[in-house]
Amino acid sequence: MAKTNPGRFFEDYSIGQVLEHAVPRTVSGGERALYHALYPARHALYSSDQFAQSCGLPASPIDDLAAFHVIFGKTVPDVSLNAVANLGYAEGRWLKPVYPGDTLRSVSEVIGLKENSNGKTGVVYVRTRGLNQRDETVMEYVRWVMVRKNDPAAPAPETVLPDLKKTLSVGDLTIPEGLDFSGYDFTLAGEPHRWSDYAIGEKIDHVDGVTIEEAEHMLATRLWQNTAKVHFDLTFRPEGRLIYGGHIISMARALSFNGLANAQMIVGLNSGAHANPCFAGLTVKAWSEVLDKAETAAPGVGAIRLRLVATKGGDPFTLKSEDGKYDGNVLLDLDYWALMPM
Amino acid sequence: MAKTNPGRFFEDYSIGQVLEHAVPRTVSGGERALYHALYPARHALYSSDQFAQSCGLPASPIDDLAAFHVIFGKTVPDVSLNAVANLGYAEGRWLKPVYPGDTLRSVSEVIGLKENSNGKTGVVYVRTRGLNQRDETVMEYVRWVMVRKNDPAAPAPETVLPDLKKTLSVGDLTIPEGLDFSGYDFTLAGEPHRWSDYAIGEKIDHVDGVTIEEAEHMLATRLWQNTAKVHFDLTFRPEGRLIYGGHIISMARALSFNGLANAQMIVGLNSGAHANPCFAGLTVKAWSEVLDKAETAAPGVGAIRLRLVATKGGDPFTLKSEDGKYDGNVLLDLDYWALMPM
Amino acid sequence: MAKTNPGRFFEDYSIGQVLEHAVPRTVSGGERALYHALYPARHALYSSDQFAQSCGLPASPIDDLAAFHVIFGKTVPDVSLNAVANLGYAEGRWLKPVYPGDTLRSVSEVIGLKENSNGKTGVVYVRTRGLNQRDETVMEYVRWVMVRKNDPAAPAPETVLPDLKKTLSVGDLTIPEGLDFSGYDFTLAGEPHRWSDYAIGEKIDHVDGVTIEEAEHMLATRLWQNTAKVHFDLTFRPEGRLIYGGHIISMARALSFNGLANAQMIVGLNSGAHANPCFAGLTVKAWSEVLDKAETAAPGVGAIRLRLVATKGGDPFTLKSEDGKYDGNVLLDLDYWALMPM
Repeated sequence: MAKTNPGRFFEDYSIGQVLEHAVPRTVSGGERALYHALYPARHALYSSDQFAQSCGLPASPIDDLAAFHVIFGKTVPDVSLNAVANLGYAEGRWLKPVYPGDTLRSVSEVIGLKENSNGKTGVVYVRTRGLNQRDETVMEYVRWVMVRKNDPAAPAPETVLPDLKKTLSVGDLTIPEGLDFSGYDFTLAGEPHRWSDYAIGEKIDHVDGVTIEEAEHMLATRLWQNTAKVHFDLTFRPEGRLIYGGHIISMARALSFNGLANAQMIVGLNSGAHANPCFAGLTVKAWSEVLDKAETAAPGVGAIRLRLVATKGGDPFTLKSEDGKYDGNVLLDLDYWALMPM
Repeated sequence: MAKTNPGRFFEDYSIGQVLEHAVPRTVSGGERALYHALYPARHALYSSDQFAQSCGLPASPIDDLAAFHVIFGKTVPDVSLNAVANLGYAEGRWLKPVYPGDTLRSVSEVIGLKENSNGKTGVVYVRTRGLNQRDETVMEYVRWVMVRKNDPAAPAPETVLPDLKKTLSVGDLTIPEGLDFSGYDFTLAGEPHRWSDYAIGEKIDHVDGVTIEEAEHMLATRLWQNTAKVHFDLTFRPEGRLIYGGHIISMARALSFNGLANAQMIVGLNSGAHANPCFAGLTVKAWSEVLDKAETAAPGVGAIRLRLVATKGGDPFTLKSEDGKYDGNVLLDLDYWALMPM
Repeated sequence: MAKTNPGRFFEDYSIGQVLEHAVPRTVSGGERALYHALYPARHALYSSDQFAQSCGLPASPIDDLAAFHVIFGKTVPDVSLNAVANLGYAEGRWLKPVYPGDTLRSVSEVIGLKENSNGKTGVVYVRTRGLNQRDETVMEYVRWVMVRKNDPAAPAPETVLPDLKKTLSVGDLTIPEGLDFSGYDFTLAGEPHRWSDYAIGEKIDHVDGVTIEEAEHMLATRLWQNTAKVHFDLTFRPEGRLIYGGHIISMARALSFNGLANAQMIVGLNSGAHANPCFAGLTVKAWSEVLDKAETAAPGVGAIRLRLVATKGGDPFTLKSEDGKYDGNVLLDLDYWALMPM
């Protein structure tokens, strides 16, 4: 009856269901400039056409996380409008860089369902693909969310839990066509540290911090056409507008330039947890840990697996307490693969 | 003597006077991205080049209201710098979509004058046209404002009240050349409701809300090169910076996506009232009422006349009290024609 | 050991040292739109491609100050990360307009060093050049900053003070190739005042004010990839985030449109002082003084030397007290050359 979108409830999902998300988006230099205004992003490959060309690409792409945010934003009206919590990510793969002029849309498939024992909520797993105007998949990822039931009496579906990789191996990653770091300019990139300079287990405190403002996180979240009410309506949550978790991901990744300036391209997302909610006024800092390293077939291109942790204070390198719970200052724990000159 | 612009006072206007407004503006993907960062705008035709092309247009235009704001902004230094109040709009018609790369300028003609009985102010009616770089009129509208007299002793002009249509008829509207909704993709547009699903008299609560921030309304108002001091200078008005009425128009229109996702293109503005002032910190919501419907000659394209009401709280569908005054929560009452797939 | 950039300390600089700054930047219509959203910029040559073409340029350039900010921002990690104060500018020259699609990078040479008598800090003078993708210098300027020593025991370098022009003469200025103001459209530019209407010694109160917001100055400062911590991290300075001095320069220059709408292009920067720090919540106003005038060889193009003063209150035209110190309300004292139709 009502013409507004009530969002889907847990009982509205079924295994194999395909959700074609609405509102495709053509990106331009405007999205790119805004990304650099919203985050202290300085990775040279995403800042300069000439630098990107010297690495074998046709031009400087839109930031990999901006592409992720656009693709993610389209899924919100169909996947998480009635979500209680965003539980996790897995098997995220960037398959093609996105350039100004490209148009992105998203399609999700329901790959897992499990009703919670309280009978009021359930967990929905979707695999989302972002496609460009040539119907090429530019990235894909799995996300699972806890969603409310509308009718508590609705029968529980058969539990299906997808078999997800805990971590992508380097063979699961796609190196952008033509990428070549053999003539990489470390001076223009901003740091001398190459792939071989990083050791597994090494931790880096990225030092810098940014205090979050209401206007900024809303500009970002709207730019990605993410419609989740909790980010915009101050009357909705008495403790303040909840900041879109992706804002923290982008902020932390941009802050990680200081120490990881050569971790240029993000190609894999192994897992991610929004450990604690973030509100305006908090100052976000970040630290990283090198989790793994691997060679690739592309000239001069190494892969590095990184844990990226965003905090709202406290000492760097603090992650979990002895009981395995995230420290109260941890906002984000992200596990991703990036490409770095060897 | 002073080189700064004092603005025009009531006695400076005369019937038939033509005001060629300054500072033409070339728009790009930057304006488009900012529009989507400032408002939760999701109408697919303004988001995706491919979607616009599937509707017969060469590319995705700049939002119709962004075009309006640019054209309006240019008139402020000549029309409303000394305005006491923005009283109304009429006969607004969008004639050609505006695309990135177009350059807009504005020209107004004084079509009405009436001194108020207090002898201190008067009402000025102007018809403003926005022109592109090919001197084609892309939109036009009538606006009337109350303007201060500089010299209270200046003689009152002969009263001339323009004969304005209360409402544009469908024959007054211009359908963009080539527009064709016969292959319209409702899935990508985001809602299944077509022209025939809306009934005259139907009311829609758009549900979502956005809490207004100082930085955002100033970014928007500056982007349109609107120079009205009250929007920027906190020392000017003790109760806070007055938010540009156009910011509320765009916010409400964007919120109306939820229930009116297929009211794609705005082609007519029948009337508009900024019922109450808006300040930062308020949460804006919106509701709509279907006022009329009409068929058009373009394939698959219907016209729908909508009342769009922005509020800062209270129950939806409340508009005026019994004495005919706007409810204290109503910020905007706008009457416009949009195009929708049949 | 640590991979993060500690910045250079005073003892790390030597005369003749060349610093190739990192992270080149391709600018687009996005930077241009953001500039107009962040500042009330209305100079027609930077707003309209057609207006710029009528002045002999191929298109509307990116604002001269935006080009300056991009070039300046790249120097921060190498020059001023450990700066105690930004002391001055000299010999700033804009040599080529910057257009969307251009890629900028920066190179600095150390041209002066002087340790302070306290042995803890010293003054570093650098001449910075901004280059485009064709390795053409688009602008250059000298800046000197006070920088901390890391090791107080480090020996003082030989004092070298560069011989800097107090003021550029008109012969030092470069007029953009093709610039021709002989067919200048004063109506579209917004004011009738031409070069001959301005008298040396004339002062102009630009009247308008803008109250500064946290989100806005951070968006601007990040957009220029300026990494100075004091602008972003509220925990860093208890009294509030210090606003990037360049934000005040751009704000004051944009406000100066009202009275100097025809001072179109900035071609020389003689000197500049950030007289007092600025924080969010302050309302910035501006006034100008005509310091000099000169003819140029370009058709219809005059040069005008202006003092631009930004204030946070007080009476206009107040600059220094009797003891030669800046008045507490003065934020900026800038001395520059602009080009104006004769």
